[in-house]
Amino acid sequence: MGTRRAQVAVVGAGLSGLAAARVLARAGRDVVVWEARPRVGGRVWSLPTAHGVPVDAGAEFVGPTQDRIRALVAECGLALAPTYDRGHHLYQRAGRRRRYRAGGRFGPIPPDPGVAEVALLVGAVNRLARAVPAGAPWRHPRAAEFDALTAQQWLGRRAFTPGAHFLSRLSLSSALSVPADEVSFLFWLHYVAGAGNATTPGTVQRLASTGGGAQESLVVGGAQEVAVRLAAALGDRVRLGTPVRALTQDAEGVTLAADDAALRAERVIVAMAPALTASIAFRPTLPAARLQLAQRMPMGAVGKVVAVYPTPFWRDSGLSGQALTDGGPVDVTFDSTPPGSARGVLTGFVSGAAMRRLDGVPADAVREACLPGLARLFGPAAGRPLEFLVQRWDREEWSRGGPTGVAGCGTLTAFGPALHAPCDRIHWAGTETAEYWAGYMDGAVRAGERAAREVMAALD
Amino acid sequence: MGTRRAQVAVVGAGLSGLAAARVLARAGRDVVVWEARPRVGGRVWSLPTAHGVPVDAGAEFVGPTQDRIRALVAECGLALAPTYDRGHHLYQRAGRRRRYRAGGRFGPIPPDPGVAEVALLVGAVNRLARAVPAGAPWRHPRAAEFDALTAQQWLGRRAFTPGAHFLSRLSLSSALSVPADEVSFLFWLHYVAGAGNATTPGTVQRLASTGGGAQESLVVGGAQEVAVRLAAALGDRVRLGTPVRALTQDAEGVTLAADDAALRAERVIVAMAPALTASIAFRPTLPAARLQLAQRMPMGAVGKVVAVYPTPFWRDSGLSGQALTDGGPVDVTFDSTPPGSARGVLTGFVSGAAMRRLDGVPADAVREACLPGLARLFGPAAGRPLEFLVQRWDREEWSRGGPTGVAGCGTLTAFGPALHAPCDRIHWAGTETAEYWAGYMDGAVRAGERAAREVMAALD
Repeated sequence: MGTRRAQVAVVGAGLSGLAAARVLARAGRDVVVWEARPRVGGRVWSLPTAHGVPVDAGAEFVGPTQDRIRALVAECGLALAPTYDRGHHLYQRAGRRRRYRAGGRFGPIPPDPGVAEVALLVGAVNRLARAVPAGAPWRHPRAAEFDALTAQQWLGRRAFTPGAHFLSRLSLSSALSVPADEVSFLFWLHYVAGAGNATTPGTVQRLASTGGGAQESLVVGGAQEVAVRLAAALGDRVRLGTPVRALTQDAEGVTLAADDAALRAERVIVAMAPALTASIAFRPTLPAARLQLAQRMPMGAVGKVVAVYPTPFWRDSGLSGQALTDGGPVDVTFDSTPPGSARGVLTGFVSGAAMRRLDGVPADAVREACLPGLARLFGPAAGRPLEFLVQRWDREEWSRGGPTGVAGCGTLTAFGPALHAPCDRIHWAGTETAEYWAGYMDGAVRAGERAAREVMAALD
Repeated sequence: MGTRRAQVAVVGAGLSGLAAARVLARAGRDVVVWEARPRVGGRVWSLPTAHGVPVDAGAEFVGPTQDRIRALVAECGLALAPTYDRGHHLYQRAGRRRRYRAGGRFGPIPPDPGVAEVALLVGAVNRLARAVPAGAPWRHPRAAEFDALTAQQWLGRRAFTPGAHFLSRLSLSSALSVPADEVSFLFWLHYVAGAGNATTPGTVQRLASTGGGAQESLVVGGAQEVAVRLAAALGDRVRLGTPVRALTQDAEGVTLAADDAALRAERVIVAMAPALTASIAFRPTLPAARLQLAQRMPMGAVGKVVAVYPTPFWRDSGLSGQALTDGGPVDVTFDSTPPGSARGVLTGFVSGAAMRRLDGVPADAVREACLPGLARLFGPAAGRPLEFLVQRWDREEWSRGGPTGVAGCGTLTAFGPALHAPCDRIHWAGTETAEYWAGYMDGAVRAGERAAREVMAALD
């Protein structure tokens, strides 16, 4: 087998790796992208359905301050459309289902006596998050204190009503797909701080909201189309179905080995979640801090269910399709009907403990577990979709969970700098390494572009 | 390259894999062991020194209730010798150095006003640990509560004096080599519960003690000799320098792929720390629970320094060579002088945050960082060893830390059963999966023997 040569090799054709390769190719660098999966997009994956609508089985939404993904969507000739956000949302807790207004001057306010407490908590988190230096939470003035607490401990001690407990836990678990015990409070502050950009501080509201927040818009045609178009522009620089098994560095460069191919490059960008990088044999061994970090950023547990109906019937009764519920296993829903489609599409997230319980059962059992909950929210018609898709990211060899790698107590203060510190000729991308919107498509793009700039500076 | 065949394949020739292979070979099973390193023993590694004494750079000690390693030491024709435990130990905190008696009716009691508090804490931990079902801490009646707390939180809230804080943290960090924030209290209870056997409940004292505890004895000739003799008895069944890259299961068996060899077996025992298994490509992908567990049992950060002196000079001034200190980076020392040697050997552990600070510096800098601390404890002569060895486990490709994999909040309750649940034809060994003495040589042997029994039951 011959060894191909390139100036820069990118491992991973998710959005982060493709965004890196795009910058390098435009700068006239000779770049090659190797991807393990038989498709591009990584955690961004749009599926055709039998009823003619493409749906996003992975990352889906784009919102304000997500400047880099917005720019890329536009450059790819794609459009954003607002997520359906009219009428009333549903709030279900402890067996009661209530409607509340989707709009309003202060945004949607769930009908729960706990919301006043939640507002105080959110304000406090937002203020603490403002002191997080961009992308460097370990430099927060109270980093040691906050990294020794779980997010659940910080939030739980300050929530007194059941509704405040439910909503504060849900605000975290719906973003990270792990129970709030499993992440440090510092990590949560970092995540909140990242929900903004260099001029706009991050807030819990921007993470959690549809209008004005991270769930504001959909990519028309499906989010994966961004990756597909980036890859098309890169042409045969992108090679699919080629998991990199080993990365060997020497004084002059790096050799990438796949099962039946080899590639020699001056620099490499590894655009993978930190936990996933443990599947590559690095020679020489990576520095200890990086080896230990890769053991300490586990992926959340997330699944997405997509139900296709003849029409978006909930709209007829004034419902937005958005719901928050403790009824499980789906805990958050959205109306993901593609613009212009006659069909109706509801997507539901299954997260954390609920997902783990369903990770090992057949897909039919996931359907049976989820449909009654949708019917309780939206009525019996919601229990009879034309089509029902289940995407369990935890079971994917090349994801091992989702939507992002998280950090428990002690990890960021001990190992945070290893997240994106280059290891000789190896540079790190992937959404987890982003300064803003880590865990989102925007963070993936930012991280890829940052890694590309690092590489160009090193090559010059 | 031809494919070798065997009934059972074992991945890893650490003590756990070798103990498994020994059981299988004795039962007449056709077993093959593949090991990534060019040596056997895994985290057990004895080094020759220039001055003629072998020293243990890894696991070293054996104690009461460690029934399986004791039996294996005897079967291998090796002897245990008591760790030197006479005279006075040293206790150094906040700049003060004091001596205290090594023996005594109640065991050694550090001269600190905090010891009464520590005794209460230890008693409480021991009582809670008694309710841990062997090897199944997730079935503790208060599992959810204790898995939501870090060990530091439980201990820290109950310690009031600086000495009690120091000693309770040290009892954990010297065993696990991570700060007490990074493990759940349930994991710590599981670890304490494991410091016993089916008839003798585990206690903190047995974890922490020399006489009567886990540090009671040394293996004469070095602990690795157990692995060396087990491997010798297995003969050419053991193949070194053969990292397994992929494990492919089908209806009839499993194919192991290494860089230049393949092996076909009916069953496989993977005898590696959970975090290390992420380096193998499993096909089909492992169940989600196992994939997620492997991301959530990071290795501690541990190094061992070994100083060889012309004589064990500390004994002349009535010192045991054992010390507890906050002076860093070494926090615990032992007299590891091999029986019969004229030389004197002090070993020191560098753990957790202290080790992480030294992981990236040259070995000489570790020496320079450690010797002043030894000299403050044992006098100027301790600063002038004939030889000084540094073993940093965090930097080892095939260990990535040590002494064991640990679990932060939420891991054991969510994923504990995946620690040793077989995945079709794949069985799991490694000390982390043991019912007793997980994290120790005894646990490695127990886990290997249990996995071998599982496999034999499945084959019959």
